[in-house]
Amino acid sequence: MLKPIMGFPATSQDNYQLNVINILRHAARSFGRQEVVSIKLDGTKLRFSYNDVYDRVKRLGNALTGIGAQAGDRIGVIDWNSHRHLECYYGIPGMGAVLLLVNIRLSPVDLSFILNHAEAKYIFVDETLIPIAEMVADQCKPIKGYIILTDKDLSEIKTKLSPIYSYEKLLQEAEPDITWPVMDEKSAYGACYTTGTTGRPKGVYYSHRDVYLHALSIGTNAEISCRDCFYQLVPMFHALGWGMPHAAFLVGAKFVLPGMYNIADLGSLAEPLVSEGVTATAGAPALFMPMLEYIRKLDKKPDLTGARFLSGASEPSLTLMKGFYEMTKAEIVHAYGATETTPLVTINRLKPWLEKELNDEQKWDLKRKQGYPVVGLDVKIVDHLGNKVPQDGKTPGEILIRGPWITGKYYNAPGSESSFTENGYWKSGDAGTMDAEGYIKITDRVKDLIKSGGEWISSVDMENETMSHPGVLEAAVTGVAHPKWEERPVALVVLRPEAKDKVSKEDIIAHLAKKFAKWQLPEKVVFADAIPKTSVGKFDKKVIREQYKDIYKG
Amino acid sequence: MLKPIMGFPATSQDNYQLNVINILRHAARSFGRQEVVSIKLDGTKLRFSYNDVYDRVKRLGNALTGIGAQAGDRIGVIDWNSHRHLECYYGIPGMGAVLLLVNIRLSPVDLSFILNHAEAKYIFVDETLIPIAEMVADQCKPIKGYIILTDKDLSEIKTKLSPIYSYEKLLQEAEPDITWPVMDEKSAYGACYTTGTTGRPKGVYYSHRDVYLHALSIGTNAEISCRDCFYQLVPMFHALGWGMPHAAFLVGAKFVLPGMYNIADLGSLAEPLVSEGVTATAGAPALFMPMLEYIRKLDKKPDLTGARFLSGASEPSLTLMKGFYEMTKAEIVHAYGATETTPLVTINRLKPWLEKELNDEQKWDLKRKQGYPVVGLDVKIVDHLGNKVPQDGKTPGEILIRGPWITGKYYNAPGSESSFTENGYWKSGDAGTMDAEGYIKITDRVKDLIKSGGEWISSVDMENETMSHPGVLEAAVTGVAHPKWEERPVALVVLRPEAKDKVSKEDIIAHLAKKFAKWQLPEKVVFADAIPKTSVGKFDKKVIREQYKDIYKG
Repeated sequence: MLKPIMGFPATSQDNYQLNVINILRHAARSFGRQEVVSIKLDGTKLRFSYNDVYDRVKRLGNALTGIGAQAGDRIGVIDWNSHRHLECYYGIPGMGAVLLLVNIRLSPVDLSFILNHAEAKYIFVDETLIPIAEMVADQCKPIKGYIILTDKDLSEIKTKLSPIYSYEKLLQEAEPDITWPVMDEKSAYGACYTTGTTGRPKGVYYSHRDVYLHALSIGTNAEISCRDCFYQLVPMFHALGWGMPHAAFLVGAKFVLPGMYNIADLGSLAEPLVSEGVTATAGAPALFMPMLEYIRKLDKKPDLTGARFLSGASEPSLTLMKGFYEMTKAEIVHAYGATETTPLVTINRLKPWLEKELNDEQKWDLKRKQGYPVVGLDVKIVDHLGNKVPQDGKTPGEILIRGPWITGKYYNAPGSESSFTENGYWKSGDAGTMDAEGYIKITDRVKDLIKSGGEWISSVDMENETMSHPGVLEAAVTGVAHPKWEERPVALVVLRPEAKDKVSKEDIIAHLAKKFAKWQLPEKVVFADAIPKTSVGKFDKKVIREQYKDIYKG
Repeated sequence: MLKPIMGFPATSQDNYQLNVINILRHAARSFGRQEVVSIKLDGTKLRFSYNDVYDRVKRLGNALTGIGAQAGDRIGVIDWNSHRHLECYYGIPGMGAVLLLVNIRLSPVDLSFILNHAEAKYIFVDETLIPIAEMVADQCKPIKGYIILTDKDLSEIKTKLSPIYSYEKLLQEAEPDITWPVMDEKSAYGACYTTGTTGRPKGVYYSHRDVYLHALSIGTNAEISCRDCFYQLVPMFHALGWGMPHAAFLVGAKFVLPGMYNIADLGSLAEPLVSEGVTATAGAPALFMPMLEYIRKLDKKPDLTGARFLSGASEPSLTLMKGFYEMTKAEIVHAYGATETTPLVTINRLKPWLEKELNDEQKWDLKRKQGYPVVGLDVKIVDHLGNKVPQDGKTPGEILIRGPWITGKYYNAPGSESSFTENGYWKSGDAGTMDAEGYIKITDRVKDLIKSGGEWISSVDMENETMSHPGVLEAAVTGVAHPKWEERPVALVVLRPEAKDKVSKEDIIAHLAKKFAKWQLPEKVVFADAIPKTSVGKFDKKVIREQYKDIYKG
């Protein structure tokens, strides 16, 4: 990265630190009567004003100091999307500590690794999630106490966790006023750990500056305002709840928290859309699909005209997007990011000129892309030599991202330096294309790209195309070492019983030639009875690669 | 101000510098085909894309280096709201120099003071404004050259300025690609000088960080998006054009520049509202009033439903606000700021609950207030001892402001330190009230407040109330020294000829008692034939204060 130059001195208050607590403090000042709704498991709705929330957050700040927490301490939270979780989002970093968000679905091994790696000092845990904390308590020695998130008296809580505190009692007994410390904006606000398929979880420690600028970016790009009602569907332990608990307060929007929800009954998450007048939310297709099914069964479909549902994690299907639009007029807005990116990187809004130029079918196609990079980030797509690929919507490359809300390293994770380029980009591991308008489409994980003679071939594309041949039951395309081209594709094909002996290697290659350039076509097509799979049913590329490692050698 | 504490280290890219050129670079990347319209004096409209603008800005950056400009140099611009002015907004600070904005209506004394105080090295000047530069060129020795903003060949330009360069020729000959330097975000982006009623102009040097965060604040609070068409009415030499040339590009909005406009024909500024589809603008009532009159004369009134006109500098009248709304459905949005505040401090949007609770008349009343503080700033209203006044919408105090886009000092201006409090607030000199909802109403300049026994009395309110007495022609209320109460009001009253000898001092006091508390009422009401006035026709409070300085002494 270029070294910054100091120019002529300015007179601005440049030492004013961006502190996340300021978002809530200002929100309470300018939108004090705005509403926060927290839904309990039995459906009861607790209603707070911004002022109420800020009052409780101030008490939380004092309570933390009271039990001995200090600036810089890492403090874990194990909770659903509740108002108490929201209060932790502000109170813990407000008093200078680090909000350590804990995924409630982690394995005990990963969970104890994370709590120990972060050296968590206190844990806030919802009464329903106490078993999770108990599971690893013995392995996490540095923990000095557990704060139980409950309405009950502590005497009613049966647990081996010790010592325990009652969250509500701490708040009740705490001083109502506070002078927040001014944290250097480069101090950690909070942390999330990524749990990839390989290796130990890796810690991303977001600075106050990072979180503050990201909130402004959401406010600017997602176009939310104080007239919106935001519904916090994304679990708050995923990438800071996608920054929404900050952005919503930044703009003064009504805020609805679904609380604990039943994974077998996700559809009922659709209920508050109407009863609370939701106009904006964010979540994954895995949540939106059951909500759509729920709505499909309603006699009277809700009118959600103007509502925007940010959709991330995976590509929303046309069924989902069209379904919501046709039934409710809500717009599914595709967005892209990762734990390492706080997470907003791209957002898919239709530009006004495309609104005029494209027909309906083209618009739906475009809406499935991940969107264009938001202002404030450097995003480039490069080939495996680090050169930018053409912005043609076709040539895939790895997506590299740099900017104030992108992680620059993983905390205390030796060996993870290879995830960053020399000039400071984070290597997302995602492969995609960018079209002339700047819209990005994620096509593969980079590890699924085949590197051939300095170019990349998408194994996922080639797999899908092979499987579209009527005689093919399933097919896996894998990159295998090649003495001259580095790698070349091998297509492992299982034919349908009725096609056996009728479909040849040449037929498959001819079929692929309709879509792929000649140099991309596999020289080797291998027919087999089955494709090796992993325990969760995915193609086991590692085994395939090993099995055919010598196929291009001689 | 509290000293920042360094907490736990974060992993974020906190050294990524907020540089204003990134706004345009990113805007061109994600909204490259968005339109910029620049209107010439003859009405011709030049049309550029964001890409075109960025291409020219890159050339400008290279051209500046080519003629010898360096990072840190102060470079003046004397221009109307043209596309070239816009290019200077990005190109000059992009290559590291300081964009020195020059008010074209300054006196030669102030102008040469500013250029010398800033040690301006180059001046960009529109061909129509060359006489302004010529007027002071002899007094400004450090200037190394003048870049003429013109479509003409230099040989057609008659001027004694020397040396001169052709802007268009410099761009034409410059390299098209550039690697922008990374400026430390605390470096000066640009400067404006305030010209108060007293003393020399004072320099506010805005940092890149300041301007960038302010742009995000406008983007968030003014609710503009890529579907908006923004019309740059505010002169770009006033407080960075109110940040709109940054905010509009940040969100990807269409941008319309009115160019040079005829002060005798401000009404025709209304023309692009319809022809270009303007949905957002910012300006002063002094511009909006003639535009309203122009529209009033049109047979077919334009439909500007949803358009937001940010109005600052002075309080918009009900006539203006209702007029625009009734004729076009455009909403006048009152906002408040100053050169020292980049300038956005408050904005008046109707909160959703007030939308429901207030009747129409109450809404119009509320809309005349300056609005609530935007997120990101500390704003407080204090009495003359520095204590917060009650947030009751009645008690006036001085408005103090602190935050990332507020100036922390004036550049090289000894004696100006008294404009700042010990804990880092800028003292605006504006007196106002804040109501329970956080809406601020500016009532006076602080120097027009009367300090009596630790409380403040608004001389402007009392003046208006005195003048509302049917027998009063005009009245001035001034604070005069008092041995016990520090100051007490004196009302100087000129009666209408027909009221002479019929209205007594007691009548005036009884009239005022309907609105003011007993302790606020003036003990002294003096009838006179005329009120001393300044050369521009304002009450000359200095003379009045001197004339009656002993009235409360014994």
